[in-house]
Amino acid sequence: MSKGITNRADDYSQWYNDIVKKADLAEHSPVRGCMIIKPYGYSIWEKMQQQLDKMFKETGHTNAYFPLFVPKSFLSKEAAHVEGFAKECAVVTHYRLKNNEDGTGVIVDPDAKLEEELIIRPTSETVIWSTYKNWIQSYRDLPLLINQWANVVRWEMRTRLFLRTAEFLWQEGHTAHASKQEAVEETIQMLKIYAQFAEEHMAMPVIQGKKSESEKFPGAIDTYCIEALMQDGKALQAGTSHFLGQNFAKAFDVKFADNEGKLEYVWGTSWGVSTRLMGALIMAHSDDNGLVLPPKLAPIQVVIVPIYRTDEQKAAIEEKANEIVKLLRSKGLSVQFDKRDTHKPGWKFAEYELKGVPARIAIGPNDMENGTVEIARRDTGEKTTISMDEVGNYLPQLMDEIQDSIFKKAHGFRKDNLTSVDTWDQFKEVLDSKGGFILAHWDGTAETEDKIKEETKATIRCIPLDAVEEEGKCVYSGKPSNQRVIFARAY
Amino acid sequence: MSKGITNRADDYSQWYNDIVKKADLAEHSPVRGCMIIKPYGYSIWEKMQQQLDKMFKETGHTNAYFPLFVPKSFLSKEAAHVEGFAKECAVVTHYRLKNNEDGTGVIVDPDAKLEEELIIRPTSETVIWSTYKNWIQSYRDLPLLINQWANVVRWEMRTRLFLRTAEFLWQEGHTAHASKQEAVEETIQMLKIYAQFAEEHMAMPVIQGKKSESEKFPGAIDTYCIEALMQDGKALQAGTSHFLGQNFAKAFDVKFADNEGKLEYVWGTSWGVSTRLMGALIMAHSDDNGLVLPPKLAPIQVVIVPIYRTDEQKAAIEEKANEIVKLLRSKGLSVQFDKRDTHKPGWKFAEYELKGVPARIAIGPNDMENGTVEIARRDTGEKTTISMDEVGNYLPQLMDEIQDSIFKKAHGFRKDNLTSVDTWDQFKEVLDSKGGFILAHWDGTAETEDKIKEETKATIRCIPLDAVEEEGKCVYSGKPSNQRVIFARAY
Repeated sequence: MSKGITNRADDYSQWYNDIVKKADLAEHSPVRGCMIIKPYGYSIWEKMQQQLDKMFKETGHTNAYFPLFVPKSFLSKEAAHVEGFAKECAVVTHYRLKNNEDGTGVIVDPDAKLEEELIIRPTSETVIWSTYKNWIQSYRDLPLLINQWANVVRWEMRTRLFLRTAEFLWQEGHTAHASKQEAVEETIQMLKIYAQFAEEHMAMPVIQGKKSESEKFPGAIDTYCIEALMQDGKALQAGTSHFLGQNFAKAFDVKFADNEGKLEYVWGTSWGVSTRLMGALIMAHSDDNGLVLPPKLAPIQVVIVPIYRTDEQKAAIEEKANEIVKLLRSKGLSVQFDKRDTHKPGWKFAEYELKGVPARIAIGPNDMENGTVEIARRDTGEKTTISMDEVGNYLPQLMDEIQDSIFKKAHGFRKDNLTSVDTWDQFKEVLDSKGGFILAHWDGTAETEDKIKEETKATIRCIPLDAVEEEGKCVYSGKPSNQRVIFARAY
Repeated sequence: MSKGITNRADDYSQWYNDIVKKADLAEHSPVRGCMIIKPYGYSIWEKMQQQLDKMFKETGHTNAYFPLFVPKSFLSKEAAHVEGFAKECAVVTHYRLKNNEDGTGVIVDPDAKLEEELIIRPTSETVIWSTYKNWIQSYRDLPLLINQWANVVRWEMRTRLFLRTAEFLWQEGHTAHASKQEAVEETIQMLKIYAQFAEEHMAMPVIQGKKSESEKFPGAIDTYCIEALMQDGKALQAGTSHFLGQNFAKAFDVKFADNEGKLEYVWGTSWGVSTRLMGALIMAHSDDNGLVLPPKLAPIQVVIVPIYRTDEQKAAIEEKANEIVKLLRSKGLSVQFDKRDTHKPGWKFAEYELKGVPARIAIGPNDMENGTVEIARRDTGEKTTISMDEVGNYLPQLMDEIQDSIFKKAHGFRKDNLTSVDTWDQFKEVLDSKGGFILAHWDGTAETEDKIKEETKATIRCIPLDAVEEEGKCVYSGKPSNQRVIFARAY
């Protein structure tokens, strides 16, 4: 245990909580199950948002905003949807409080009862498709490519910061198309964008695949997902993209006239990622010393810490540090010069390590004499002394190298923890010994899937998109199968 | 009436609704009182957000996120606050629905009643100060300079798109300070930032001032505001900045140890602007032909419309237009080339006029021969023909000119509609004939303020910061006064 962080090996779950807390990312709120995203945590989320938003816009999507409230009756319009979401929602029944007659505060005013209760959106398909009905008349109105950044609420009983909270932040894309093919292509396009974001920006390798019938989104025809592997060998679903078919168009009677004037139901998709990605990011890379951030998502990429004894040294180092700040900012890096004299260099080193700042530059009196600086990498802990003249070229390169190196490390870990098994005994043994992703044959039935889940808590994470056809026997039932799927215990 | 827009002179209120609808800015949602912000409207809001966020960050603020839900008991902790907000809030009482036994859908599950009801935040002082209690121990933890972008709900009975809706989007800054002076300075700083944003970006002149006791924020010591004048002579409060004193610190017991170790209550501020600014923007500049946008907030600053008869002409114009797009984008302008052949040039002209695109470039066969383009300004309707070679220099300058010109026009209008009056008859006459801002002496009592409001519906918009001391008599009571205040009927 260092700096109050439990070692992963001792208690992985506590390690995670410690990092969220000590790196100032988030905390529990007075309202059970809700979280407060602290400034440092939020600044990482902002970087994620900016990048995703850019990718959405580059593929022709625009943002809009739909209401927080869903009329109760809307939920019931799509049969699978209501089954999936009615069980865990926040219900608004009244619109006013009044003073309690005994003077002890305020109570709900019984006269202010809503005729129809409102649900806080757990997701917005129903509100949005009820609106699309008015926006879509002809094929000329299609496709409709809309995204919304919003808060949603799902009343979870067991919550964990970022991973599962009653209220969370997310984006939800909702698109409408004139043909099935176009909607399927959109679904896959957004899955690929999520995968690209996860791998290139979060430095987190993911497996792209399709969910089994039991695991798909309530109301979807097909759900595609990206699945990442955490350091404890558990899987984390990091994003989903749903092909909705004509389900919501039928539920809300959304038709368009095609170019021959024939009325058809519209085809839909929806796709989302949430603040859950913060949990994934933390667990994918961090170590027993704290957070490890990929440079592309680090709010501070480089921190400069001065080391001095005399005021003269301090002044000289500050001058040099200011030059370096200016230089690196001109190269597009986010740099912070921590010249606070209320904290010692050692305390600062530990602090920035905890917060996952990718590179630290230390400048001391010896460096000033030699014209050098010391650079420490957060991911490997390596220290290098380089000439001050090299700083401007070295740091941008180092950022790329760290980004790449973090991804490779995570990729290596996943490779080591992706196991093909052919028997039920092997399945259970691998699951209990090392965990990770297990590639196994499955007979394609929900019955087998349920039994495996019941016996081992492992679920089918996905049917990978890049799976090769391969004759085999279901690891559980022994029935024929022609493709391996990915099993894991999951968050 | 042109393009389905009612003339301002005929029905100002309908004119506003028409613009919001025809320019595709927003619409009412199926949930009473809530709005759907449509993609074009949202893209204007995004530009506002980006600029404000930049200004907040430049002054040292960081973003964070606090929960949507406020426990009912929190509201009661600050006496004025609960009076102000309990009357119009959405109350969550249950956390689950269940299938109705008669098979007709879902009903609220009576077994899933919350022990303590939750309020959807109408504003977040209570949740945030209950959190600050844990974040602040010593003067070293101060100042705390935090902002949040969020949705809030106030259950309004009469709603108007953007101006007054049950749910709206806003930012709320919540800062904590070690001294009264610092908190007051922060309050004023944020007021100035709002004023700067309104004037330099929205091109909307505002009067900066302080609210009277009756009009201030429930829980504040002082509320400062910016007040803008709409074209119908009514005032619109466009932003507020509150000095909270130690009120919320006392309500939530937030103390800090000063540098001598003495425990003191923390000083606070809060400040916010909302999607209401969209309503202000629309009403400040638009005309009977549609929206007029200041270039700095226009999602599309320049649109290029090709005019052709033959495929040859089309190809040649497209090539030229693509060059211009590239050139203008390299100068930082947001340009759209509308080459759709499903719509005629005249239709496009009307469409972009309606949507307030600041400049339109038309290129026809004659232009191609002469090496010219035709440029039309949205704000004045003026058309100019310039050489194609000048486009790259002309358009960026034109954007500045339009920004400036729109501001001057609004400023001139306000100047013409700011009237000093000295008698009660004059007051009533000006209010009923031309409206606008009325500068009048007031005796400083809530009683007079109430009576004026009762008799005329005019309220004190603010006590202007730049008012000069001037001996006079209250326009209503005749009692002595040493400063004029601003009265108006308001949104």
